[in-house]
Amino acid sequence: MRITGTFIDEISHDIPHQNWGREEWAKDFAHMKAMGIDTVILIRSGYRRFITYPSVYLKNKFGCYEPPIDLVELYLELADEHDMKFYFGLYDSGHYWDTGNLQHEIDANRYVIDEVWARYGHHKSFGGWYLSMEISRRTKGATEAFNTLGLQCKGVSNGLPTFISPWIDGKKAVMAAEATLTKENAVSLKEHEDEWSEIFAGLKGSIDAVAFQDGHVDYHELQDFFEVNKKMADKFGLQCWTNAESFDRDMPIKFLPIKFEKLRLKLEAARKAGYDKAITFEFSHFMSPQSAYLQAQHLYNRYQEYAKTL
Amino acid sequence: MRITGTFIDEISHDIPHQNWGREEWAKDFAHMKAMGIDTVILIRSGYRRFITYPSVYLKNKFGCYEPPIDLVELYLELADEHDMKFYFGLYDSGHYWDTGNLQHEIDANRYVIDEVWARYGHHKSFGGWYLSMEISRRTKGATEAFNTLGLQCKGVSNGLPTFISPWIDGKKAVMAAEATLTKENAVSLKEHEDEWSEIFAGLKGSIDAVAFQDGHVDYHELQDFFEVNKKMADKFGLQCWTNAESFDRDMPIKFLPIKFEKLRLKLEAARKAGYDKAITFEFSHFMSPQSAYLQAQHLYNRYQEYAKTL
Amino acid sequence: MRITGTFIDEISHDIPHQNWGREEWAKDFAHMKAMGIDTVILIRSGYRRFITYPSVYLKNKFGCYEPPIDLVELYLELADEHDMKFYFGLYDSGHYWDTGNLQHEIDANRYVIDEVWARYGHHKSFGGWYLSMEISRRTKGATEAFNTLGLQCKGVSNGLPTFISPWIDGKKAVMAAEATLTKENAVSLKEHEDEWSEIFAGLKGSIDAVAFQDGHVDYHELQDFFEVNKKMADKFGLQCWTNAESFDRDMPIKFLPIKFEKLRLKLEAARKAGYDKAITFEFSHFMSPQSAYLQAQHLYNRYQEYAKTL
Repeated sequence: MRITGTFIDEISHDIPHQNWGREEWAKDFAHMKAMGIDTVILIRSGYRRFITYPSVYLKNKFGCYEPPIDLVELYLELADEHDMKFYFGLYDSGHYWDTGNLQHEIDANRYVIDEVWARYGHHKSFGGWYLSMEISRRTKGATEAFNTLGLQCKGVSNGLPTFISPWIDGKKAVMAAEATLTKENAVSLKEHEDEWSEIFAGLKGSIDAVAFQDGHVDYHELQDFFEVNKKMADKFGLQCWTNAESFDRDMPIKFLPIKFEKLRLKLEAARKAGYDKAITFEFSHFMSPQSAYLQAQHLYNRYQEYAKTL
Repeated sequence: MRITGTFIDEISHDIPHQNWGREEWAKDFAHMKAMGIDTVILIRSGYRRFITYPSVYLKNKFGCYEPPIDLVELYLELADEHDMKFYFGLYDSGHYWDTGNLQHEIDANRYVIDEVWARYGHHKSFGGWYLSMEISRRTKGATEAFNTLGLQCKGVSNGLPTFISPWIDGKKAVMAAEATLTKENAVSLKEHEDEWSEIFAGLKGSIDAVAFQDGHVDYHELQDFFEVNKKMADKFGLQCWTNAESFDRDMPIKFLPIKFEKLRLKLEAARKAGYDKAITFEFSHFMSPQSAYLQAQHLYNRYQEYAKTL
Repeated sequence: MRITGTFIDEISHDIPHQNWGREEWAKDFAHMKAMGIDTVILIRSGYRRFITYPSVYLKNKFGCYEPPIDLVELYLELADEHDMKFYFGLYDSGHYWDTGNLQHEIDANRYVIDEVWARYGHHKSFGGWYLSMEISRRTKGATEAFNTLGLQCKGVSNGLPTFISPWIDGKKAVMAAEATLTKENAVSLKEHEDEWSEIFAGLKGSIDAVAFQDGHVDYHELQDFFEVNKKMADKFGLQCWTNAESFDRDMPIKFLPIKFEKLRLKLEAARKAGYDKAITFEFSHFMSPQSAYLQAQHLYNRYQEYAKTL
């Protein structure tokens, strides 16, 4: 299964910054294109006080810092040039991480969506919206948040597609800042299906695709979870994408590029389950030939060898 | 003291993968050769479901994944070419790490040893066996496991040599996934000697060399432990090697290349104690000029300068 | 605000070593010079048993290891060549970290100061002394230690300047070896001012400059703390420098180069507060074009672009 999309991890939660300027980003889009990527997704347009574009609203409302460069404009220009689709990731105030309450995110993004569409909607590459709340099964109010924000995104943009990328609450679902790599109380396949079916059943045409993160269950459990995800997606009229993580969750250094064999196992499981599309988190640190992590360029080569066999 | 051997860390427990292909491995063996390495040791032929060669037995018995490349064949070909000795590291099912019980490893490896010798024994570089259980002083059944497996290895291969590489239960003997760097209840020199003498006394010609890992005690304690190790090795008819760790255990990032001064201290202590051979864990991440960790190429240069003075 | 000084992190507590030799250090001083650096500060001349120069006193007294190279001589030669000022960082026996008691450091450094001045004081670049105890507000005996050692440094060297670089006990004041990134009980602005005013009030002309580390409070808190620091420095007749940390304290990997936007926020806050000088911890790992962390070369480029606008 080919990877045709990637997140762009600006602003990052937990991956150290590469400090690229315009020149390096231009090169990276060319590298992406050479790997077959047609979709780039801004992971989030801001996180707490750090933002990717000079939002008047966010600076006034949350005291966000003036960014040194308008990354949204830069990415849209590069996506225009390379004939890619750009998905805009919503703002993350941090309030949900602190309190578990999504209302803050809903309120802030009502303004952000309007502001962003007015400012950048004219780009031909502006192709959709990413609802950036990384929720799992137990998030209260997830369905309502998806509906409110997803429908607003579609409303302002003549129905451009939306997607979400939740995680499976498996044994590797631990925070990056935690010292451990796994936890005891992992979700069962049955619970996963029940709880996500309930969330999906409440959607009112607000979400077009779901891209579960693929890194939280063990490799031999992937096939079962993927089959269930595809079954649910079909039942509720969603496209089924995989978010193929290209970093390694099994190592003490959090995080470096994944072993290619693991990535291949995950892509193969998605292919067998009949998934519609594979995107990755993310190309620029973990698969790019110019990544600061030199393992990434070798992962790129191994992936390209594999892609030729498909 | 010159380093003349290195582990090859495939499959890795805790060191992120470099994603090298055939070309990079070929270059690395040339780099090893240039540093004076005549012995390469596969750290383990598999760990849980990940394996280095397409073992019919392991795929059927443990559901191991089909590896993307036959690394054992590749390493043997490269060792043939460079006139090196290749030691095969036994399979690690993970059961011992989970339960402390070695029986699983004994049972699984009875088959692996036969399979591997039949498949790869014809290579001129196939030079020995590495019993990959990383045990310490308190492992129950260690002696019996060494005898059973070591004698079987020798039996199938016309007596090729075997070795083990246990750790000293010193103050830095903590797991890679733990947040701390040291622990309180370190072994005393006396306990170390008593307990390992008991293990070694039970060996029945099954083991030819012991290569204690050198990274778990403080630098000023090394000489005493090394003298004891040499005394025990002489007494029980073993060759005394040092496993000179080339990664740094004293840093929050687990793990990057060691400071050269520390490596030199450890090698000098082994030399003074009259050790027979120095091997390292391991060249490709921590000392190779092409390592993804650029500190490694400088460590290589510092080591080469030092080696010229010997 | 331009960065005109950098620490040199030899011997390191918690940053993995790059294993540079004479050639790499010579290149790095040239890179520093190109960025406008006129001051290099040896972070410490030794830590426990590892030392930067072959000190007869430290080898005899503390069993320190013979260093493979005389780094103090090397740095002084390079600083001479590039017309920079070199500050010598005092020895750290580790006793203070273990016990909280500074007496050991005072006693050891009485000898070190004499030995070092006799040995290296003739270099034209020998420009001052760095009192390397990284104390915070609650360190008992800090004032006395500063007075004793600072006055001795000045005494032997015809009054060369001295400085200290304490930390603000903010929410990010956690140890590198801890798994967490923040703590609950951060100091208030008022407590910070009260406690440091008390320390500064006791100084008897022993210290010329204070360079608070800038990485322990949140970015939006910086301006307030910096204003207070400047006010205190003015009141007590000290120069007010900022120690602009160029590594990122907000990431699980401890530590990689900082996101440029964060460094800019910190430098701008120092500029607005009217600080006298900016130094960084530290150039060679986190900002150098030849750093093993490739993010550093991009940080260097981003900083250089910024510096052109000043």
